[in-house]
Amino acid sequence: MGAEQIETKWIGKRIVRPDGVDKVTGRANFGADLRLPGMLEAKILRSPHAHARIKSIDTSKAEALPGVLSVVTAKDFPEVSGMADAGEAQVNFADLSRNVMAREKALYDGHAVAAVAATSASIATEALSLIEVEYEVLPHVIDVEEAMKPDAPLLHDDLFTKNVDPKPDKPSNVAQRLEFGAGDIDKGFGEADVIVERTFRTAATHQGYIEPHAAVAEWTEDGQSRIWCSSQGQFAVRDMTTTLLGIDHANLKVTPAEIGGGFGGKTTIYLEPVALLLSRKTGRPVRAVMSREEVFRGSGPTSGSVVRTKIGMRNSGEITAAELGLKYEAGAFPGSPAMAGCMTAFACYDIENAKVVGYDVVSNRAKCAAYRAPGAPMTAFAVESVLDELAEKIGVDPIDLRLKNAAKEGTRALYGAKFKQIGFEETLKAAKDHPHYSAPLGPNQGRAIACGFWFNIGGESTANVNVNMDGTVTVVSPNPDIGGSRASMVLMAAEVLGINPDRIRITIGDTASIGYSGLTGGSRVTFAVGMAVVDASKQVVTQLCERAAQIWEVDVEGVEWRDGAAHPASSNVGDFDPLSLEKIAAQSAKLGGTITGAAAINARGAGPGFATHICDVEVDKGTGRVDVVRYTAIQDAGRAIHPGYVEGQMQGGVAQGVGWALNEEYIFDDKGRLENPGFLDYRMPVTSDLPMIDTQIIEVPNPFHPYGVRGVGEVPIVPPLAAVASAVSQVVGKRMDQLPLSPPRVLDAIDG
Amino acid sequence: MGAEQIETKWIGKRIVRPDGVDKVTGRANFGADLRLPGMLEAKILRSPHAHARIKSIDTSKAEALPGVLSVVTAKDFPEVSGMADAGEAQVNFADLSRNVMAREKALYDGHAVAAVAATSASIATEALSLIEVEYEVLPHVIDVEEAMKPDAPLLHDDLFTKNVDPKPDKPSNVAQRLEFGAGDIDKGFGEADVIVERTFRTAATHQGYIEPHAAVAEWTEDGQSRIWCSSQGQFAVRDMTTTLLGIDHANLKVTPAEIGGGFGGKTTIYLEPVALLLSRKTGRPVRAVMSREEVFRGSGPTSGSVVRTKIGMRNSGEITAAELGLKYEAGAFPGSPAMAGCMTAFACYDIENAKVVGYDVVSNRAKCAAYRAPGAPMTAFAVESVLDELAEKIGVDPIDLRLKNAAKEGTRALYGAKFKQIGFEETLKAAKDHPHYSAPLGPNQGRAIACGFWFNIGGESTANVNVNMDGTVTVVSPNPDIGGSRASMVLMAAEVLGINPDRIRITIGDTASIGYSGLTGGSRVTFAVGMAVVDASKQVVTQLCERAAQIWEVDVEGVEWRDGAAHPASSNVGDFDPLSLEKIAAQSAKLGGTITGAAAINARGAGPGFATHICDVEVDKGTGRVDVVRYTAIQDAGRAIHPGYVEGQMQGGVAQGVGWALNEEYIFDDKGRLENPGFLDYRMPVTSDLPMIDTQIIEVPNPFHPYGVRGVGEVPIVPPLAAVASAVSQVVGKRMDQLPLSPPRVLDAIDG
Repeated sequence: MGAEQIETKWIGKRIVRPDGVDKVTGRANFGADLRLPGMLEAKILRSPHAHARIKSIDTSKAEALPGVLSVVTAKDFPEVSGMADAGEAQVNFADLSRNVMAREKALYDGHAVAAVAATSASIATEALSLIEVEYEVLPHVIDVEEAMKPDAPLLHDDLFTKNVDPKPDKPSNVAQRLEFGAGDIDKGFGEADVIVERTFRTAATHQGYIEPHAAVAEWTEDGQSRIWCSSQGQFAVRDMTTTLLGIDHANLKVTPAEIGGGFGGKTTIYLEPVALLLSRKTGRPVRAVMSREEVFRGSGPTSGSVVRTKIGMRNSGEITAAELGLKYEAGAFPGSPAMAGCMTAFACYDIENAKVVGYDVVSNRAKCAAYRAPGAPMTAFAVESVLDELAEKIGVDPIDLRLKNAAKEGTRALYGAKFKQIGFEETLKAAKDHPHYSAPLGPNQGRAIACGFWFNIGGESTANVNVNMDGTVTVVSPNPDIGGSRASMVLMAAEVLGINPDRIRITIGDTASIGYSGLTGGSRVTFAVGMAVVDASKQVVTQLCERAAQIWEVDVEGVEWRDGAAHPASSNVGDFDPLSLEKIAAQSAKLGGTITGAAAINARGAGPGFATHICDVEVDKGTGRVDVVRYTAIQDAGRAIHPGYVEGQMQGGVAQGVGWALNEEYIFDDKGRLENPGFLDYRMPVTSDLPMIDTQIIEVPNPFHPYGVRGVGEVPIVPPLAAVASAVSQVVGKRMDQLPLSPPRVLDAIDG
Repeated sequence: MGAEQIETKWIGKRIVRPDGVDKVTGRANFGADLRLPGMLEAKILRSPHAHARIKSIDTSKAEALPGVLSVVTAKDFPEVSGMADAGEAQVNFADLSRNVMAREKALYDGHAVAAVAATSASIATEALSLIEVEYEVLPHVIDVEEAMKPDAPLLHDDLFTKNVDPKPDKPSNVAQRLEFGAGDIDKGFGEADVIVERTFRTAATHQGYIEPHAAVAEWTEDGQSRIWCSSQGQFAVRDMTTTLLGIDHANLKVTPAEIGGGFGGKTTIYLEPVALLLSRKTGRPVRAVMSREEVFRGSGPTSGSVVRTKIGMRNSGEITAAELGLKYEAGAFPGSPAMAGCMTAFACYDIENAKVVGYDVVSNRAKCAAYRAPGAPMTAFAVESVLDELAEKIGVDPIDLRLKNAAKEGTRALYGAKFKQIGFEETLKAAKDHPHYSAPLGPNQGRAIACGFWFNIGGESTANVNVNMDGTVTVVSPNPDIGGSRASMVLMAAEVLGINPDRIRITIGDTASIGYSGLTGGSRVTFAVGMAVVDASKQVVTQLCERAAQIWEVDVEGVEWRDGAAHPASSNVGDFDPLSLEKIAAQSAKLGGTITGAAAINARGAGPGFATHICDVEVDKGTGRVDVVRYTAIQDAGRAIHPGYVEGQMQGGVAQGVGWALNEEYIFDDKGRLENPGFLDYRMPVTSDLPMIDTQIIEVPNPFHPYGVRGVGEVPIVPPLAAVASAVSQVVGKRMDQLPLSPPRVLDAIDG
């Protein structure tokens, strides 16, 4: 398409984020920060068993405790069914209802089985101990490969593997088989000079958002209700909660609290319908807040995985065939990101002959949730590790090897898309030119590169832009601001309107005050909601020009908008002084009312994102401890609306990827109980664990966005698993194929 | 214009009001109902003097009281100037600033001079007593005619009477002279067979809203701030508060609380900038709530008035000339509704020769505020009383006399408008036919009729309508709901969309989430905001038709919307089953995004409203007590969207007018201090004081509104003063020309 960057005045400026002061001073209100008069506190009773039939629940003693106003169990929830889209995933309401509150069986340690509302948190907690649940403990299965075995304990009697021929006649823990392919892999492998095949394993990892799930719900006597909560989408919370409870969407107003991190994990609901039911039963507002332990036991991490891949190559470095098989843990209900794992696996490369097979497998773990580029880091770990090994084997520079096979404009990806203008090669070339790539390494240090891809999505997006009479402007965004999107929206509005961003204030609308918008997820907000903001701002410019035409008594075609003011489009129009937005706004009352733009779009053409990362590690050969000592992330952002927040996304993605690579994992005891549900035992990297993460933004504009934006939030978590593991492999002299690279595992590799 | 009523399915239905359950259960949150963490309580120190120079204010002792966090006085407010439109009135910011906080002088008993924020209300109250204000007490003047005298104490050294020739060379308490005229009154009076001239007096009366003024304000470190308060317009609060404090409109988000009555009195600000300043100085949220005493002493009533009128008539009943002079109390700053008093005085009648002169006069009373049909009841009292007397004199039925002179389509009103289709004659004819008019009267009972007019206004109005995926609909209105406007908006949206109103929920948007809309006042909301809702709903219908066209793969012209569904416009289009809003909404994600309408209009063509009231009174000749024993209000509503709330407005207006006529007045001591600042001593009618007020809605459609709506809220307070007084005059045999008709005054009349 050859789209060029547009010259801009405000876009690309690093303005202070509109929510910054509130967040550093502690004024910002998060999910747990609302207090309503008469508010009750809710606590959730959770299963201590990984797998157990619930034979009975006796809540009478709990209900009799003074201060307890209500107890709910699954029987208070209606039976629901059906599916819905939710950003990058699908929601199965029968499963969602059972995940929110266990019905026939508890399917994992931490699965909610009852909830209490009481006048204080301590009374609610005491009441939990008075609820008598009769469990029939069943055999359980945690590991994905164990769960796939024919004799594995079955989670669901009615789950039959989809997409297999012949149709299965017995239930299974394998929910679905997926397959993609192109060309002829047998022929392709036949043409290869060298083939590497290897199996990789990753552990389930949690998104690790700082803010635990929290919700305040209030039901009113006429059925109109409201929820205040932290989420990645107030509309998703509204639509899922109302569907689970069988009420009208319009009867629930969800107000988005500030969100202390989501990374995909707050795209679903846990507490919201429970708190609303308790409010309905008690007639009082109810607050429910998870502890960190509950977050780990009861909310979804991403899948642990087993990925086998096999890649064949000519000695020239040209890939002739590639094959990949993946098994993803879905947790207690179907719905791992196996599909995205399959689709992204080879998306960086132009491969003629390829085949990908995936399995979505349930086991007795918390139902997985989306986590930043869901499914992609695991297959990238496998594919990039094997490419690293192949480069070594044929003696080609790993960047050159990737450049030889890199996807580019016109490449048809295995998952079907034909790429338009993309910036993958540019990231590889930038990596090759980067001083980091040629810097000397110290003793026990290794260096590797890895690449990553993410689709990025568009979708339903709304925005309102209103001009105040003093010439200031109010923007309403429908999406919670997680990574600085308020700043990006303000910059885009400022660019279109031609006014200083400090004249623009932005608010995040509740579900009653703006039209439906999809989740803050899929790296879609700056792209898609940004397009809506640009559209709404352009509507405002049109109206400003119309008002100027009224004032000048000329045709609107005679007016053009630039530098925040209406100008005569040519000298034929007349000799008029420019009319600034401020001047027109002051007269708006007399000239036809408020100047306001409202856009509702289904944004298409989210530009795919690509990254190349360079990672240096140092291995302590005595202890097996790995330190990342230098890291450079290079990524095509299309256009960095606010470069500071693009860099922040890149750095954050790398930090999470490094944690995934080095330390994070769930540890279960032999009864299937989670042993490390807290940040002391579940080891996430902190600042002192990481070097300054260097970033380089590449800008190959996305031709479908008015300013060239591509999503940036997800790509940067894709390469680190492979980059770290390949760098460690360099040092220990052995291909590291299982994560996390915890000291014992690295030590094992060193000691042979 | 001959507009006809349109057949409707939902409009005219008496649905339950959307805010009804919340209001009867006590869930609804009013101005004082918000609690924020760390919130301080503010109290206002008020002048005990009617007129005093402020020589100094020493706040040091108050500031030293433990628990006091800040004290503000006028020196904390910037000097501001300029004027702005505010619905039916103009705002002078220099005056508004001085009314919010006295600067050089305290101008009335109760004028705010300082404010304290403390950790509790009791500490704040204690601190008030520690503030040392050095006053130089000045001579004061309360009465409007006293204030007009050349030697009266002067409130403002810089106030020179406007619109007089020659320009005055000395300041005066007369702020402005107004004059309207038509024809030749000398000639007119010369043609008269009978002339009546009389002077009428009314007392200042308070709007008497149940909910005192209250505001919670929070300033944040980056200048973004918010206010939660009860008002008749969150945008007006925002724009006035920001202008007084010199901040950007966009930096203040005002969230409308539910409002417990306003009647015009909540169209201005008192506490809001004070609370915000205190929040800025303390860094904490601040709540300020008036007591009832403060409401009476510190907030604005309507003007007391002296109105002289002279009407000449032929024996046939034809008015030949009319003259009127009015003097309205503005309170401490210019801005009585003298202009509206002049404009409405003769608006019911087609009079060839007329002249109206008005004076806006300041005196040492709280600055007046708008009160339901501001200015009109006082001149109607004069004009309708004189017509009553003339009817008696020439022996014509008072309704026939009015029918002879009634304004009709094509009449040019003295104030300039040429009436389109109006319903005044219809109300007179309905009154004549009403059983009330011919019912027998008991002993000591009297009956009179009186008529009333109000312009009604349109103005800037916005509305958003959003379709949810389950087919429910969310409407955003920009205007506080005082009289049931939520119900009216829902009915109009339901009518356009063709769906059941219970599928529609409405929310009142804050200033950050919807575009600017004018005040809830001027009887404009159901008309003007209703037009915006209709516009936005029509946008939604257009989009629904477009989506249906997409689904059917036909041109959009081939789709028509009726009964809540898309239908093929003709059999040529194809044989398709109707597609309901629900079905289209469910697919909206796939078909281009959210379905949403957003309208911003400057509504023109608010249809003038007219009423005829019939009032029966019974006078206790021993005590002078007057009881209204039967009352019928007949009014042209254009089209009653929700008849129950139209009737409620009519009944409420009558109740307030009866209070004005019979009991309400401000009583000052000789120092100018208000002696009756509470509901025990300021006597408003309660339910037991009034009969059931009968209503009859006339519907002569306003051709400028899609469903024919005229404003209804203000007209019904216009006739009662005259209706009650004329009925009493019948009994006591003497023209009652001074209100209130309190027992001593009636007894005086009886005793001669």
